[in-house]
Amino acid sequence: MKIGLIGLGKMGYNLGLNLLDHNHEVVVNDVNTDQVKALHSEGAIPAYSIEETVKSLEGPRVIWLMVPAGDITEEVVVKLNGLLEAGDIVIDGGNSNYKDSLRRADLLKENGIHFVDVGTSGGVDGAREGACMMVGGDSEVIGQIEQIFIDTTVENGYHHAGEPGSGHFLKMIHNGIEYGMMQSIAEGFDILEKSQFDYDYEQVAKVWNNGSVIRSWLMELTQNAFSKDPKLDEIRGVMNSSGEGKWTVESSLDLQVPAPVIALSLMMRYRSLEDDTFTGKVVAALRNEFGGHAVVKK
Amino acid sequence: MKIGLIGLGKMGYNLGLNLLDHNHEVVVNDVNTDQVKALHSEGAIPAYSIEETVKSLEGPRVIWLMVPAGDITEEVVVKLNGLLEAGDIVIDGGNSNYKDSLRRADLLKENGIHFVDVGTSGGVDGAREGACMMVGGDSEVIGQIEQIFIDTTVENGYHHAGEPGSGHFLKMIHNGIEYGMMQSIAEGFDILEKSQFDYDYEQVAKVWNNGSVIRSWLMELTQNAFSKDPKLDEIRGVMNSSGEGKWTVESSLDLQVPAPVIALSLMMRYRSLEDDTFTGKVVAALRNEFGGHAVVKK
Amino acid sequence: MKIGLIGLGKMGYNLGLNLLDHNHEVVVNDVNTDQVKALHSEGAIPAYSIEETVKSLEGPRVIWLMVPAGDITEEVVVKLNGLLEAGDIVIDGGNSNYKDSLRRADLLKENGIHFVDVGTSGGVDGAREGACMMVGGDSEVIGQIEQIFIDTTVENGYHHAGEPGSGHFLKMIHNGIEYGMMQSIAEGFDILEKSQFDYDYEQVAKVWNNGSVIRSWLMELTQNAFSKDPKLDEIRGVMNSSGEGKWTVESSLDLQVPAPVIALSLMMRYRSLEDDTFTGKVVAALRNEFGGHAVVKK
Amino acid sequence: MKIGLIGLGKMGYNLGLNLLDHNHEVVVNDVNTDQVKALHSEGAIPAYSIEETVKSLEGPRVIWLMVPAGDITEEVVVKLNGLLEAGDIVIDGGNSNYKDSLRRADLLKENGIHFVDVGTSGGVDGAREGACMMVGGDSEVIGQIEQIFIDTTVENGYHHAGEPGSGHFLKMIHNGIEYGMMQSIAEGFDILEKSQFDYDYEQVAKVWNNGSVIRSWLMELTQNAFSKDPKLDEIRGVMNSSGEGKWTVESSLDLQVPAPVIALSLMMRYRSLEDDTFTGKVVAALRNEFGGHAVVKK
Repeated sequence: MKIGLIGLGKMGYNLGLNLLDHNHEVVVNDVNTDQVKALHSEGAIPAYSIEETVKSLEGPRVIWLMVPAGDITEEVVVKLNGLLEAGDIVIDGGNSNYKDSLRRADLLKENGIHFVDVGTSGGVDGAREGACMMVGGDSEVIGQIEQIFIDTTVENGYHHAGEPGSGHFLKMIHNGIEYGMMQSIAEGFDILEKSQFDYDYEQVAKVWNNGSVIRSWLMELTQNAFSKDPKLDEIRGVMNSSGEGKWTVESSLDLQVPAPVIALSLMMRYRSLEDDTFTGKVVAALRNEFGGHAVVKK
Repeated sequence: MKIGLIGLGKMGYNLGLNLLDHNHEVVVNDVNTDQVKALHSEGAIPAYSIEETVKSLEGPRVIWLMVPAGDITEEVVVKLNGLLEAGDIVIDGGNSNYKDSLRRADLLKENGIHFVDVGTSGGVDGAREGACMMVGGDSEVIGQIEQIFIDTTVENGYHHAGEPGSGHFLKMIHNGIEYGMMQSIAEGFDILEKSQFDYDYEQVAKVWNNGSVIRSWLMELTQNAFSKDPKLDEIRGVMNSSGEGKWTVESSLDLQVPAPVIALSLMMRYRSLEDDTFTGKVVAALRNEFGGHAVVKK
Repeated sequence: MKIGLIGLGKMGYNLGLNLLDHNHEVVVNDVNTDQVKALHSEGAIPAYSIEETVKSLEGPRVIWLMVPAGDITEEVVVKLNGLLEAGDIVIDGGNSNYKDSLRRADLLKENGIHFVDVGTSGGVDGAREGACMMVGGDSEVIGQIEQIFIDTTVENGYHHAGEPGSGHFLKMIHNGIEYGMMQSIAEGFDILEKSQFDYDYEQVAKVWNNGSVIRSWLMELTQNAFSKDPKLDEIRGVMNSSGEGKWTVESSLDLQVPAPVIALSLMMRYRSLEDDTFTGKVVAALRNEFGGHAVVKK
Repeated sequence: MKIGLIGLGKMGYNLGLNLLDHNHEVVVNDVNTDQVKALHSEGAIPAYSIEETVKSLEGPRVIWLMVPAGDITEEVVVKLNGLLEAGDIVIDGGNSNYKDSLRRADLLKENGIHFVDVGTSGGVDGAREGACMMVGGDSEVIGQIEQIFIDTTVENGYHHAGEPGSGHFLKMIHNGIEYGMMQSIAEGFDILEKSQFDYDYEQVAKVWNNGSVIRSWLMELTQNAFSKDPKLDEIRGVMNSSGEGKWTVESSLDLQVPAPVIALSLMMRYRSLEDDTFTGKVVAALRNEFGGHAVVKK
């Protein structure tokens, strides 16, 4: 199949290689022309603008976006909405908020353009070797392009989840679960670290990866991490986040689902971004007020 | 009434003055003889050992302990168990774990000595001017000494809660609630602090103390604290804790009562004691493993 | 001062009486004409439409809304925007989301109409006898109408917090703190209830209201509640919520402030709305899968 | 090797078969003689009392306990302490609290008997086919019996973690992580269930097991569970627990490690055991007191 691919960052570039491996014709575009040239040298057809990308494809066009979620995705979708024709298909493979995807599906629909949202998991290696893809879109549309999802995922790693928006919603929940699993693992090792015993964390993760109830890819990654830095002495425990965890918590609130574990996983990430907290100051000041407990001066 | 008072720290010394104000004869003892002398100069009868304290009283003796909970209380109770006689009464006014109080009540009972546990709230000023006391002990015993609780508490600030142990249990729960309330207030101000608005926190606490649903003594203390240091710039948000919060959470687990708010109040205190966390390092390392997200190097 | 008052529910009706007590002229309107007539009989000037309300006032008009937050407030503000003139003042005394207030302030400003947001606390009795009001609005505007806030609040119960939006934001945070405080109190009593001791909860709340660190209006209400129903046998523990707690948590997420206690207070409310949970089913099914632990059949 | 095996429940029986598969001589004992006979018919040497078990072995004896943690393990260890000789080895393969294991190691040591604690994960099938074992014990002792751990675990599924106690501590933490992971997965599906989309949960779990970040044995079990009962309509969400999660939270408190996710996983399990809560009643009563919000009558 001939496919346009816009966005050649870590994920998009690897997806491009993955598509080429499976003998698709790929028209590639990025604001960074070096990335375009690099993928051209791997066999892709270069395009140096979105317009050129569109012109290099024949209807019904299929254009896969791997650009940053938010403003940039918005900009590209709006532009494509002005360039594409009825029957063309826009695939958003980024980490977009499903509410944006619902809105964009409606926007494009006005011009007869189809929208497909793809939640992608598996990291950078997954994009290259075979990812996990959760896909939302109308069945008829998915039927036209399903082969490219089958080609670029691991076996059984593709699922058409439902109507437009359902793919990004599912990816959001996937990430919420991921937050909770990671925090669970991390709390466990933190208790080990403070305990009276002297564990070898790489070996602990290794034994847990073989036959235990908590064996998992995240535990394998934990094993890898400890194999490189046995006590993680070289890094600071700053836990950034990129949106999906927050959206998951917001969705849980909207739907009145108690999700304390996912919520706390997120909040402990926020806590890790601060050296000191105003919350702590208020509690310390109050303890001083009623009990004369000494405060720590700055 | 003639009362022995052992332990003349911040709380005990003020309680001694409070008892003297109400025309009780008070035999005072502390390992720090300066405190004994100071209270002597206020009208108390000095005693320079526990033995002397016991000898200065006539049976049935009443001895009130205001010594640190844990090992020191244990030591004093064990010593008194060897010195006192059947019918004497030991009052523990410290922040003892109720399980210890249950055990001590049984220990003393073997010699016919009565045990009364008093949970005291209201801070140092309360000990001086009138505190809140939650009392556990057998009704007959309480009947003999009730007047001293009435004298040293604010109006309606004394409650005989039940059998021995029930006073310290109630104080423990009081402190658990206190942890939750303080954290609630503190989180609220933290959100104000990070918001787009520029609030005067002293004025905020003041208006909340007048007519609002959350008016409370803790909010008055919040107002006081902000009146001295408007943004709490001078202190660090290190939140220490002294045991009762932890015991409350442990009790909630033993009784299978979900108490997420009290538990989290405690856990955020523990979090405030650390500059960096192993939990954070593990999560940061995992994000790097699967997503290539940069870690913060030390 | 002559004031229009739209919305004569529990809160609005009492506010009307409160304003009349302080010798203000009050033009009252509600969709329920019985309420208008009732307040007319108390001395208010009746108006049977928003148009009539506006006509009954002279510029610069002051109109206070006590209508339900959300769609109805929106409808009334939009209508007033078409009827009022530059220099007139709209006060929103409802529990509006501060984001709506920010938007409405901007909307009205286009026509030179001023917007003032008032967060009101103290319940129905507060509206009648003297509430707590947190007010957002431009200083010049507030200067013109401050007396009516002073008149209808308890002493020191009025605070001009800042620019438009800051009043409703402050009220939102007030409610977030309220959620946390209530859950703290409730968890404490739940542990008492499951404990080995047999407490008299009314007496417990009473002693805690006299001299303790946790004395507070909410604890007084707890005492009241237990005085009527000593074990709360007659009610179910269904905890509804009305928006501000959720908004507080959403704001904490937007501002990256960890607010676990307020968040969990809200989530336990949501949990109380369900008899059974899908979360529980999944965990029970998993325990059965790996450990052969029996599940509870429906 | 010749090994005594006491306790032939689900786990112990399967472990016996597993040991027989690897050509060990196994002397088996259980209070249920049917289990002894059944395993005898599989090739094990029957013993109808603990004394007989001990007599059927030659020094240095190796006796593996798979009896319920708590009182029964205590009873058996105390009995063995009176029957065994210096140099003999007691292996506790149950889910004992590590504090008990530390104590028992000391107790047996007085008679020169060695104690080895084995935390076993992998469920009933793991005991049969190859489990994951986390082992605590002195290196010299472990050296003598290591082969039986290697034989009964999956490849790389055995780890000598450290001194006595460290095996059960590690298993405890394993289970704490398991609680958090299970709750994370469950919360995710709960949000899906309440969402606007109509997902096929078996397919969702399946795609997440292929290439995603959260692929794991627990997700495979989730897939299995949904394959049998697509919406889990047949079961109630009652989440029991068996001790290790609680001990993990208690350890986190003792070590002052914030572990909100593991703690909340446990607390939501407790919550699932109740139809109604006293916490909920108190909050509902308070909302009624200050806001006139209707309560739900029983």
